[in-house]
Amino acid sequence: MLSQPPFPSCPGRGDAPMIQAMSRAFEDFPIGTRLVSTGYPITADAIMDFGRKFDPQIFHHDPDAAEKTLFGGLAASGWHTAAVSMRLFVDAMDVAGGIIGMGVDELKWPNAVRPGDELRLEIEILQARHSKSRPGYGIIRIRNVTKNQRDEVVQSFMANTMLPRREADL
Amino acid sequence: MLSQPPFPSCPGRGDAPMIQAMSRAFEDFPIGTRLVSTGYPITADAIMDFGRKFDPQIFHHDPDAAEKTLFGGLAASGWHTAAVSMRLFVDAMDVAGGIIGMGVDELKWPNAVRPGDELRLEIEILQARHSKSRPGYGIIRIRNVTKNQRDEVVQSFMANTMLPRREADL
Repeated sequence: MLSQPPFPSCPGRGDAPMIQAMSRAFEDFPIGTRLVSTGYPITADAIMDFGRKFDPQIFHHDPDAAEKTLFGGLAASGWHTAAVSMRLFVDAMDVAGGIIGMGVDELKWPNAVRPGDELRLEIEILQARHSKSRPGYGIIRIRNVTKNQRDEVVQSFMANTMLPRREADL
Repeated sequence: MLSQPPFPSCPGRGDAPMIQAMSRAFEDFPIGTRLVSTGYPITADAIMDFGRKFDPQIFHHDPDAAEKTLFGGLAASGWHTAAVSMRLFVDAMDVAGGIIGMGVDELKWPNAVRPGDELRLEIEILQARHSKSRPGYGIIRIRNVTKNQRDEVVQSFMANTMLPRREADL
């Protein structure tokens, strides 16, 4: 089983009925809503594990060789940062019915993620509307910005996502 | 150690000196270049492992509950598809000096990735120019399209990436 990062503010995630009852839906995210996730620590081992599996370039999995690259040391794959940011998004949004990504734009990684960094995600709801093709769902446009412990932006993007409307549960 | 998918056409990846000598650089990817990766099999275990760690929504890690969702069964996280596609990209490009992602646009997941699918990546070089700020590097704009064994597009995006020019090795 894969190890999980600590999410002390999100207990009971495995208890589906409780989460269902407490869960949030489209109506809980009007335009202008802002959320901030908990922190997610990034270890050298996690960077290298992800790098070896999905992005086997020396600056992602070989600390010595990485010293001689543009990064000047080990740095996380941008897709690792994206995956971690998704974890923070799922936990911060807390929509038991699920959130489905439809498309992502302007995905950027302006600063490297290093071993020992702690990431957090800032979410802003830019648009919110009902789905025309799926009446039980709403579509929200979000800006997701991932920052490190020094408040430097390590990733940003905008996305359209689809999530259940509350009446769909009734 | 994490398991690796088979890449029969890319032997000796761990032999750095050989790869360095055989490696490709900016000059090997003129505008219009097209590459196709090897195949990458997607298992239910891999979908659920990634889902539990990075995208813990029921349609990514709970096969029974997933039946009752929009997906109608287990489906890979889009960020899992992105990570697998990066692996295929790194192996197909074979640039030992490394390729650094600068930004991604129009990232879409038009069809779900299912257990048992085999993915491949189609790469097209749209633009190629020298970096102004880093003389040893070139910048290429690519279109990356990931397809399954039925030729359905499961992911597409465009990206700017930076990679070493050959003269930088001399």
